[in-house]
Amino acid sequence: MKKVGLLLILLGLSAASFLVFAEAPTCPADLGGKCDDSDDWKGEFFAGIPKIKYEGPSSKNPLAFKWYNAEEEILGKKMKDWFRFSVAFWHTFRGTGGDPFGAPTKFWPWEDGTNSLAMAKRRMRANFEFLKKLGVEWWCFHDRDIAPDGQTLEEANKNLDEVVELAEELQKESKIRPLWGTAQLFLHPRYMHGAATSSEVGVYAYAAAQVKKAIEVTHYLGGENYVFWGGREGYQSLLNTDMGRELDHLARFFEAAVAYKKKIGFNGTFLIEPKPQEPTKHQYDWDAATSANFLRKYGLIGEFKLNIECNHATLSGHTCHHELETARLNGLLGNIDANSGDAQTGWDTDQFLTDVAEATMIMFSVIKNGGLAPGGFNFDAKLRRESTDVEDLFIAHISGMDTMARGLRNAAKLIEEGTLGEVVSKRYSSWDSELGKQIEEGKADFEYLEKKAKEWGEMKVASAKQELAEMIFQSAL
Amino acid sequence: MKKVGLLLILLGLSAASFLVFAEAPTCPADLGGKCDDSDDWKGEFFAGIPKIKYEGPSSKNPLAFKWYNAEEEILGKKMKDWFRFSVAFWHTFRGTGGDPFGAPTKFWPWEDGTNSLAMAKRRMRANFEFLKKLGVEWWCFHDRDIAPDGQTLEEANKNLDEVVELAEELQKESKIRPLWGTAQLFLHPRYMHGAATSSEVGVYAYAAAQVKKAIEVTHYLGGENYVFWGGREGYQSLLNTDMGRELDHLARFFEAAVAYKKKIGFNGTFLIEPKPQEPTKHQYDWDAATSANFLRKYGLIGEFKLNIECNHATLSGHTCHHELETARLNGLLGNIDANSGDAQTGWDTDQFLTDVAEATMIMFSVIKNGGLAPGGFNFDAKLRRESTDVEDLFIAHISGMDTMARGLRNAAKLIEEGTLGEVVSKRYSSWDSELGKQIEEGKADFEYLEKKAKEWGEMKVASAKQELAEMIFQSAL
Amino acid sequence: MKKVGLLLILLGLSAASFLVFAEAPTCPADLGGKCDDSDDWKGEFFAGIPKIKYEGPSSKNPLAFKWYNAEEEILGKKMKDWFRFSVAFWHTFRGTGGDPFGAPTKFWPWEDGTNSLAMAKRRMRANFEFLKKLGVEWWCFHDRDIAPDGQTLEEANKNLDEVVELAEELQKESKIRPLWGTAQLFLHPRYMHGAATSSEVGVYAYAAAQVKKAIEVTHYLGGENYVFWGGREGYQSLLNTDMGRELDHLARFFEAAVAYKKKIGFNGTFLIEPKPQEPTKHQYDWDAATSANFLRKYGLIGEFKLNIECNHATLSGHTCHHELETARLNGLLGNIDANSGDAQTGWDTDQFLTDVAEATMIMFSVIKNGGLAPGGFNFDAKLRRESTDVEDLFIAHISGMDTMARGLRNAAKLIEEGTLGEVVSKRYSSWDSELGKQIEEGKADFEYLEKKAKEWGEMKVASAKQELAEMIFQSAL
Amino acid sequence: MKKVGLLLILLGLSAASFLVFAEAPTCPADLGGKCDDSDDWKGEFFAGIPKIKYEGPSSKNPLAFKWYNAEEEILGKKMKDWFRFSVAFWHTFRGTGGDPFGAPTKFWPWEDGTNSLAMAKRRMRANFEFLKKLGVEWWCFHDRDIAPDGQTLEEANKNLDEVVELAEELQKESKIRPLWGTAQLFLHPRYMHGAATSSEVGVYAYAAAQVKKAIEVTHYLGGENYVFWGGREGYQSLLNTDMGRELDHLARFFEAAVAYKKKIGFNGTFLIEPKPQEPTKHQYDWDAATSANFLRKYGLIGEFKLNIECNHATLSGHTCHHELETARLNGLLGNIDANSGDAQTGWDTDQFLTDVAEATMIMFSVIKNGGLAPGGFNFDAKLRRESTDVEDLFIAHISGMDTMARGLRNAAKLIEEGTLGEVVSKRYSSWDSELGKQIEEGKADFEYLEKKAKEWGEMKVASAKQELAEMIFQSAL
Repeated sequence: MKKVGLLLILLGLSAASFLVFAEAPTCPADLGGKCDDSDDWKGEFFAGIPKIKYEGPSSKNPLAFKWYNAEEEILGKKMKDWFRFSVAFWHTFRGTGGDPFGAPTKFWPWEDGTNSLAMAKRRMRANFEFLKKLGVEWWCFHDRDIAPDGQTLEEANKNLDEVVELAEELQKESKIRPLWGTAQLFLHPRYMHGAATSSEVGVYAYAAAQVKKAIEVTHYLGGENYVFWGGREGYQSLLNTDMGRELDHLARFFEAAVAYKKKIGFNGTFLIEPKPQEPTKHQYDWDAATSANFLRKYGLIGEFKLNIECNHATLSGHTCHHELETARLNGLLGNIDANSGDAQTGWDTDQFLTDVAEATMIMFSVIKNGGLAPGGFNFDAKLRRESTDVEDLFIAHISGMDTMARGLRNAAKLIEEGTLGEVVSKRYSSWDSELGKQIEEGKADFEYLEKKAKEWGEMKVASAKQELAEMIFQSAL
Repeated sequence: MKKVGLLLILLGLSAASFLVFAEAPTCPADLGGKCDDSDDWKGEFFAGIPKIKYEGPSSKNPLAFKWYNAEEEILGKKMKDWFRFSVAFWHTFRGTGGDPFGAPTKFWPWEDGTNSLAMAKRRMRANFEFLKKLGVEWWCFHDRDIAPDGQTLEEANKNLDEVVELAEELQKESKIRPLWGTAQLFLHPRYMHGAATSSEVGVYAYAAAQVKKAIEVTHYLGGENYVFWGGREGYQSLLNTDMGRELDHLARFFEAAVAYKKKIGFNGTFLIEPKPQEPTKHQYDWDAATSANFLRKYGLIGEFKLNIECNHATLSGHTCHHELETARLNGLLGNIDANSGDAQTGWDTDQFLTDVAEATMIMFSVIKNGGLAPGGFNFDAKLRRESTDVEDLFIAHISGMDTMARGLRNAAKLIEEGTLGEVVSKRYSSWDSELGKQIEEGKADFEYLEKKAKEWGEMKVASAKQELAEMIFQSAL
Repeated sequence: MKKVGLLLILLGLSAASFLVFAEAPTCPADLGGKCDDSDDWKGEFFAGIPKIKYEGPSSKNPLAFKWYNAEEEILGKKMKDWFRFSVAFWHTFRGTGGDPFGAPTKFWPWEDGTNSLAMAKRRMRANFEFLKKLGVEWWCFHDRDIAPDGQTLEEANKNLDEVVELAEELQKESKIRPLWGTAQLFLHPRYMHGAATSSEVGVYAYAAAQVKKAIEVTHYLGGENYVFWGGREGYQSLLNTDMGRELDHLARFFEAAVAYKKKIGFNGTFLIEPKPQEPTKHQYDWDAATSANFLRKYGLIGEFKLNIECNHATLSGHTCHHELETARLNGLLGNIDANSGDAQTGWDTDQFLTDVAEATMIMFSVIKNGGLAPGGFNFDAKLRRESTDVEDLFIAHISGMDTMARGLRNAAKLIEEGTLGEVVSKRYSSWDSELGKQIEEGKADFEYLEKKAKEWGEMKVASAKQELAEMIFQSAL
Repeated sequence: MKKVGLLLILLGLSAASFLVFAEAPTCPADLGGKCDDSDDWKGEFFAGIPKIKYEGPSSKNPLAFKWYNAEEEILGKKMKDWFRFSVAFWHTFRGTGGDPFGAPTKFWPWEDGTNSLAMAKRRMRANFEFLKKLGVEWWCFHDRDIAPDGQTLEEANKNLDEVVELAEELQKESKIRPLWGTAQLFLHPRYMHGAATSSEVGVYAYAAAQVKKAIEVTHYLGGENYVFWGGREGYQSLLNTDMGRELDHLARFFEAAVAYKKKIGFNGTFLIEPKPQEPTKHQYDWDAATSANFLRKYGLIGEFKLNIECNHATLSGHTCHHELETARLNGLLGNIDANSGDAQTGWDTDQFLTDVAEATMIMFSVIKNGGLAPGGFNFDAKLRRESTDVEDLFIAHISGMDTMARGLRNAAKLIEEGTLGEVVSKRYSSWDSELGKQIEEGKADFEYLEKKAKEWGEMKVASAKQELAEMIFQSAL
C-alpha cells in the first residue's frame, strides 16, 4: 500500500478521533446482527430513544428536558430562538474517546471501522436522526469530519460533494441547517507548521483551496456562518519562528477569504474562534481582545465576528462571561461554543456545561447582545472518554441544554426583578451628573478637572456592595 | 488627630511599603549614632559601598560587575546605551518588605520612621548616591513615593514641588534624569474602585488632577517618558460593574492626558504598562495585545507605546519574549520593566531577573527594535522580604544588570555567528518564491491558489528543527 | 520613640490589616459623635442591625436567612450542629481592606485608630454582639488579633490575659466558645524566615513560648481545637535553604506542642491547616496529602487532624471536595475553613463561598464524615476591599451560611433520593463478587489473578455514566 | 475483520503514537528502495550518523557532545556513572507526532506501517544501533511498545517473549541493559477506568497478569528497576468514584506485586512515578509527597522508591528540584525522568531539558543523594511534533545529555568553590549551639523554650542573602 493511501484512510478521522474500529459490517444495534452495509440504509439508529420532550423540573426522566421548553417565551422570545442550539458533528459522530495516552473507547453500533464514503453517508443519516430526536435545528461540521479525505484535492472535494448532496437532501425534509461550517486545517501532517501561517508556501495555497471549498459547501447547505479556528496558527517556539511574517500571511489569507465570500454571494458571518493554546504552544488568536486587535490592525474589523468558546476563555485566564463581554463591547459577539473546562486542568476538556451560575452569566451577555442570531449556541462538547453508551450522547446534550435553559430563566428573573440592576445603576449614579456628562462627551480637560477636584476636596467613595450583588445573584439560581 | 491627618501620614508610603519604622532620628550607619536629622544632611549613605566597577567574569567580588561593562561596544552601540538602566525609587527606597501576611522587615539606617518632608529629601539624596555608585543614569518614580501626600491636593502638590526641586538640583551635577515618572493611583482608598474607571466621578477628576501634576513634574525634571499603570482600572466582579462605561471613561482620560501633554510641550512618550491582574481581579490593560486593541478601538494608537514588564507577561500566560515581540510588531515597544516572576506562583513577585536564557531572548527583541530609546530598562524589582542588609540592594541590582549584559552578549554572539538566523531563514525559504511574493503583496486570490494547489499535489513539509535551534541557543549561553 | 515601641503598635494589627485609622476617639455611629472611649463602653455597636432570622427562600430581605434554619433537622441532626459555624475574628474585626498595592479602606465606627488595650476590649465586645446577632456560637482567633503585642513577651502575654479575661466574661452569658485559637507566627518580622523552621534558633524558642501561651488561653476559654497554620514554614528559595533540617525542626516543635497539651490537660484537637504557598513561595504543609505524609513520617499521625480551607485547596491544584476526601480517607478531617478562591487568580482571595454546587460537594464529605465535631465551619473569609458598609459584614456571612445550608439541603436530598448513590454502587458492583472479596482481603496473588484473567478473556467494561451523574447532581441544586 | 483483531493491531502502538504509516515494505533509507522486509535484516538504520563523540564546548558540530564526556571524572565519579542515561523506547521508536488535534507526522524509513512482529524486531535492532551510536548503556520500555498486543493474554505474552528474546541477544554483545521496564496500563480501552483502580474487578486481574509478565521480562533482561506509572489510576469526577475503595485496591495490587517480585528473586527497585493529572483529571500518585503518604499509610514505604519526572513536577506546582529534594528527604529518590515542560502550558510536553540552571539544581540533589544507582536518568522526552528528520532524534538526545552534563559541571564547581555552601551554613549557624542541639535531640520542651525566650528578649534576625545566593549560582552557569 502506498503511504499516501494509508494516510488517506487514517486522516478521514476527525481531530480527536484517531481510531475507529468495530465489527464490520455493523448496523444499528436493534437489528440484532442482520443489517445492510450499503450507504442507503434508512432504518432507525437510536431505536431505543424517543423524541426528547419537556417534562418540567420535577421529572426524573434522564431522557427528558426539565428546563428547556423550546416554544416557551422568555423576555419576549422563544427559548429556541434565544439559543439556536447546534450539535457539533465532530464530537458527536467522530469522537472516539481517544486521548494522548489512550486508544478509542467508543464503538457505536452504526460504525463499521472504515472511513469509507458509505460509512460517511450512514453517519450523516444518524446525525439527522439525532438532531430530530433531540429537537435541535442546527448542526456544525468540518469538511473532513463529514467526508473522507482524498489522495488529491480533487478526490477530497468529490467525496465532500457526495456527502453534502446527501446532507442537503436530508435537510430538505426539515428546518435543519448548518449553524456553521469550517475546514479542518489541523489534523493532516501537512498542517503541522500551520495552514495560513505555515512556513511552507504550498501549504498556504492548499489551505486556501480547502477553505474555498468549505465556504462553498457551507453556502450551498444554507449555513449562516463560517468559522476559522486556527489550531495550528501559532508557534511552538519563537526561536525558529518569524512571527511578524506569519501574522501578515494570516491577514492576507483572511482578506482573500473575504473577497471570495463576496464574490460567490455568501452572506453568512465569518467568525474567528479564539483559543490561547493547544495543540500549539501559543496560538495567534489567543483571546477575544487579541483577535480584535488583529482584526483592527489589518483593517478586517468589519468583516469578522468572534465565536467565543467557554473552555477557551478559561484556558486564557478569563471567565467565559468576560470573553463574551469583551466580544460584545467590541461589536464582535457572533456565536458561542457552549462548553466548559475543568477548573483544575490546563487543557481543553470540552465538557458539557452544567454550572447554572455560569450559564446565567452567559445569558446576561446574550440578552444584552439582543440574542446571537445569525449565530447560536454550538455544543462544542464531548462525552467523557469513559462514557460509552449510546444514550450518553443524549443525556449529555439534554443536560447541556437544560443548564443553558436554567441560565436563561435565572437571567430573565434577575432582569425582571431589577434588584441586581439597581445595585449597578446606583453604583454609577455620580456619573449621571453634569460633570459626568461633560467627561463622557470629551469636554472635560485636565485643567477643568483639576479645578473641580480642588473645589470638592476629598470625596466619599461608596461601598461596591459585591457581597450583596452575589447574594442577589445566588438567590436567583 | 483627625482621620484625614492620620491617613495622610500613612499614605505617604508607596505601594508595597505600608510601614516604615526605625529609631528616630536616624542617620547613616557610619556616623555611629551621632547624626543630623535635618533634610540637608549631605553625608554618605552607603559608606561601606564603593563605586561599582567592571571586573570581568572571573571576579568573585559581589560588589563588582562581571559582565556589564558600560562603555564596551556591542553590535555598534555601548552597553549603557542598549540598556539605559533605571532604578525604581519605589522598590529601592520605599519598599519595606511588607507582604499580605507580614509587617515590614527593612529598617534602613537613613529612615527615621516618619513620612515627613525632611525624610523625603534625605531619601532623595540617598537615591542619587545609590544611582551614582551603581553607575546608572536614570530613575523612575511615582509622585507619592518621593513626597508626602497632603490633606488637600494643594498641599500634596506643594510637598511634591519641594522634593522635585531638590531632585532637580541633585540632577544638575550629573547626567541623571528620570526615565519616566508616573502617578500613584492605587494606594489611596479613594482609588479602590479605580481612578479613571472609578464608579465615582469625583475620583476621576481627582485622578486627572494628580496625573496632570505628575506629567508636569516629569517634564520639569527632563523625564523622557510617562507611564500609566492602571492597577485599579479593572473589576473585582462583573456582577456590579459596567465594563463598557468604564472603558469609555478610560479612553476619555487618556485623550485628555494626550491633549494636556501637547499643550505643555511635553515630548516624552506616553506608555501603558499592561498587567493582567493583581491587585484587581481583572485589569483592563491585560496584556500587550489587549492594550493595543484598546488603543486602536479608541483611536489612541499613535499616542502611546507600551512598557512591558516580564513578570506581568508571565502572569498573563505569555513569555516575556512573546510580549516584547507582540509590542514590537504592533509598533508599540517603548520600555521594559526588567524583572522576573516565579514560575510556580500566581502573583507578582517582582524579582530581579537572573535567568540568562530569558535575558538573551529579551535582547533579541530589543536588538530587532533597534534599542529602546527614549525608553530603557527599569528595574521594577525588589529585594526578597528576607533580604535586609543595605548591601543586598547593590547585590540585587548588580546581579540584574550582569544578567542582562550576559543576555546582550549572547544575543550578539548568536546574531554574529548567524547559525540560528540561518535555521529560521531556511525554514521560510519557500516564501521567497514568486508565489510567496504574490501572496505577500495581496495578489493571490483563492481561485489562483486552488489552481496552484491542484497543480502541485501533496507538498513536502520540512522539519521545524526546533531541537537544533534550542541546541544552538543553549550552546551560546 | 524607640524602634521597638513603634513596631509594637504596628504589629498589633492582624495579618491582612496593616493600617487602621479613623477619627479618634470614635464610637458606634449611632451615638452621633458623643461617645465613651473607655474600654467598658457597653452600648450597641450594630445598632441598625436586628438579630438575623430565618425567613425562607422567598424572602428578599438581605438581612435574613433564606436557607439556613438553625434548629431545623436534616438527616437527623440540626443544621446548626452540622455546621458549628464560627466567625474569624481576624477578617471580621481586624481586616482593613489593605492589599499589596493599597491602603486600608475600612473605617468601622468603633475603631479609634489605635492598637490600645482599651480598643482591643471594645472590639471584643463588638465581636460578641456580632456573633449573637448572627446567631453563631463559635469564634476563632489569633493571639495577636485580639490583644496588642508587647515590647517583651511578658507584656504581650499580660495584654493577652487582660483581653482573654473580658472574652471569658462575655462568653459566660452565652453558649459562645472558641472553635479554635491559634498563634500569629507570621506578621512580625522576627518570623520572616519561619517560626518553627526559622534559620534562627532564638526565633524557634520565641515561637514555642508564643504557642504555649496561645494553647493556654484557648484551653482557658473552652476552645475545642487549636490550629497550626505555617504561613512562614517553608522556603523562598532552595538555594539558601536546608529543607531537611527545617522539617526536622518542625517535627520537634509539634512533638513539644503535643507534650505540652497533654501536660496541661487540654483535650482539644490539634489541627494543621495546609496551604501550598503565599506568603511563602513553597509552604511545607502544601496540601492534605503532604501534611499527612509529614505526620506519618514523624510519628505524629495520631496527634493531629487537618483544617481544610477551600481556597487553599484550589491554590494547590485540587478541588475543595478532593482535599476533604483526602483528609477524610486518611482519618484526618477535623475542621473546614469555609471560603472560596477565584478560579482565575493565583492568590488567596478568601471570599465567602456562594457556589451552591461546591457547597453540596463539601457537604457530601461532611455527611460521610459523620459531621465535624469537635470541629466546625470557620468563615475564614473576608469582605472585598471595596465593601465598606457595616452591613456588608452581615450580608457576607448570611450569604455564606445560606450557601452552605443549600449545600446541606441538596446533599441530603440526593442521599435520600438515592439515584446518585445507585450510579456509584452499580459502577463498582463487580467488586461485590467472590474475586472482589478475595482481592480486598489480600488473598489474591498475581498467579491466581493471571489464571483468572486467562479464564475470562477480554471483559466488558461499562460506561462510567459521568454525564448522568452530573445531570442528577445538577437537577438537585 | 473482527473488532478484536483490528483493535489488536492498533493497540500495539505505544501511548503517544496512535498511527504509524509509511510505504510498505520499507527499509533503511540508505538502501534506496531495495530492501529486505524480513525481521532479520541487519543493516545500518542510521547510516549517515556516526558514533557521537565528545568534541568540547567550542565544537559547532550538532552531532557531537560539547559538555558530556562519558569517561571524565567529576567529583570522583565518571560522568557516565553519575547519569546512567537511558533512552525511552516509546518516545524514540513509537512516538509518531500525533497529538489530540493532529495525525502522526513521523515516517521513519525503517517503519512499514504495520504493527507486526517482524516490524517489532526490526525496530528493536534500530534501538540498539541508536543506543550504541549515542553511547548510552540503558534503555526503558513498556511491554506493549516493544511487541504487538495479542487477541488473548497468551498471544500477547508470546509476542512479547519473541521480541524479548531478540533484545536479550542484542544485549549480549554489549553492556546495554534495561534501566527499567514497565507495563502499559493506559492505552487499551479496557483500562479506561484504571487498571488496579478500575471499577471492574476483571480489569484488575488482567492488569495483575500483565504486570506479572512485565516484571518477569524486566528481570530476564537484567533490568535494574521496575516502574509503576498509574496514568489511569485516579478519577475524572468524584461524583461517580469511590476513592477510598480504589485506593485500597491500589494498595492490594502493590502488595501482590511486591510478593511476586520476591518470589521470583527480582532484586530490582520498584519505582512509583508521580504525576498529578493527564490523562486523568486527578491521579492518585499526584506528587512525591502524596505518593510517600500512600506508601506510608499502607505499610509499603520500604518496598518502593520514586521516579521523579521534571515535567510532572512542574505540572503539580513544584519545581523539579523541590520534588527531587522531597523524594530524597523521604529516602525515596530512585530515578529521574529527565525532561522539561513548558512553563506556559498546562499539559505534559515531555521536552528535552535545555535549561542549564535547572540541570544544575537537579545535579545538586543527585550529588547529595550520592548518585542514583541502581536508578539513572531516563530521557522520557520526545521530539516536537514538527521535528521530522532522523537526525533530530540524535540532536535532541545530545542536547539533553549536554545540558545535564553542564549541570553536573556547574554543580561540582559550586560545591568545590564552597561559596554557596557557606551562605547556607552561615545562615543556620545559630542552630549549631547548645540550644540548637537540645532542640534537635528533642530535649527542649515548651517551658524551657519559654524561659529561654524570656531571657533573650528580641533577637536579631539576619538577612537571608537570597540575591547573593542567586548571584553566586548564576555566575557559575
